[in-house]
Amino acid sequence: MGKSGILYVVGTGPGSSELMTLGAVRTLQKCPVIFYPVTQSKSGQQKSRALETVKDAVDLGKKILLPLEFSMRKNDSLVYEDAKEKCLAFLREGKDCAFVTIGDPSVFSTAGKFASMICGAGFGAKFLAGIPSFCQAAASASTVLCQAEEDLHIICGDEWFFDGRLTKELSSLDGGTKVIMKMNKSLIQILLLTVELGIEEKCLLVQNASMEDERIIYGKDFAAFAEILLADESFGKESGRYFSVLICRG
Amino acid sequence: MGKSGILYVVGTGPGSSELMTLGAVRTLQKCPVIFYPVTQSKSGQQKSRALETVKDAVDLGKKILLPLEFSMRKNDSLVYEDAKEKCLAFLREGKDCAFVTIGDPSVFSTAGKFASMICGAGFGAKFLAGIPSFCQAAASASTVLCQAEEDLHIICGDEWFFDGRLTKELSSLDGGTKVIMKMNKSLIQILLLTVELGIEEKCLLVQNASMEDERIIYGKDFAAFAEILLADESFGKESGRYFSVLICRG
Repeated sequence: MGKSGILYVVGTGPGSSELMTLGAVRTLQKCPVIFYPVTQSKSGQQKSRALETVKDAVDLGKKILLPLEFSMRKNDSLVYEDAKEKCLAFLREGKDCAFVTIGDPSVFSTAGKFASMICGAGFGAKFLAGIPSFCQAAASASTVLCQAEEDLHIICGDEWFFDGRLTKELSSLDGGTKVIMKMNKSLIQILLLTVELGIEEKCLLVQNASMEDERIIYGKDFAAFAEILLADESFGKESGRYFSVLICRG
Repeated sequence: MGKSGILYVVGTGPGSSELMTLGAVRTLQKCPVIFYPVTQSKSGQQKSRALETVKDAVDLGKKILLPLEFSMRKNDSLVYEDAKEKCLAFLREGKDCAFVTIGDPSVFSTAGKFASMICGAGFGAKFLAGIPSFCQAAASASTVLCQAEEDLHIICGDEWFFDGRLTKELSSLDGGTKVIMKMNKSLIQILLLTVELGIEEKCLLVQNASMEDERIIYGKDFAAFAEILLADESFGKESGRYFSVLICRG
């Protein structure tokens, strides 16, 4: 029996192929099979930020490309199960597979779950780190997140906002820098919260870090920006919300 | 008058050139001048992990290489001032300069200070993100740091240990994953603390992530490992201590 393939979970960084690592590029070049997550836009168009990132750096011409169609309307377990079976078939044939994921696989990625399923079936998985979006957000804004004895906290916006913890945490920034991610329903309210607490000058918001439509909004403009967002009905459905990183420097 | 040069602050990742980004490699290839931090070993030998990382991916043959010799015995302000003057001279001549720093420039790097000095003198600085050591530590151990609604806290070991906060924080890991870095004097005591609190099975230590001498120690072996370290007199002076990342999964 031949040698089994390996699953490589590859972080592509937040969105520019310039942020892919040499290791990620080399690994994807040699993997014949690539699984990539896709999301559906309102108009039904499929989009994969991970694959978009990869295609500028890796020749995908001869690859087997397999989308993982996650959707709010579907049961994601079925998507995973289906992908797992396909992946296992390739691994048994000795073909290496890659699962690409934006940012870093260890930070808010679905990759961990997929890798566990593959390892649980007796195959090997290897993680390749990627630039997390919060590091690129800081780089884009030419700022630092923590230095010397400062701490850094990466927190889930919606979760902390709706249970009231965020107000408490942002009332004092002595405890280090707070990076707020995963603001889905709460983004506008969190921007206004920083203004209410008078800490907006210590904050900045980076949307779509490293992408062509990257946007940096400084705290002094949060109130005006929140007004614009409130008036924009399409905003709730667009990725600018999900791909927003708020940095509150301690 | 010609165009001024730019200072690029380039994160090289934790230590393997495979973890450098395409952007970092391209930028260093085009920069004629590279500043790199060096540390002195006990025997007086100079070492630069950042430059070691770069040299496998970038041809340094025709570069002007300028060490920044940080030392406990010297006043670092003088090192910075001297480097700043040298850097400004190149920038005025229109030569781009790079400052290489391990990991990511936004996380516990001295790069922010240097960039501020250059910007303060009226020149431009651009940050290039790198893989932070804690992301590679997770990748090396094939684990994740946070997923779904979990939070991630990057905290300074010595600081939190010696003021007693760490005992409190680790008593409950409900608040997400704690990544403990910058354990200089406290490493052994922190390992033993996790055992004392009975959370060691949720912890793992990664030393020199991505390097040839990378080492992963799982919580069940912490007590034995602490004994070995205690018996090793040379340990206190070696980089294995500084380049240790402790992951405590919530």
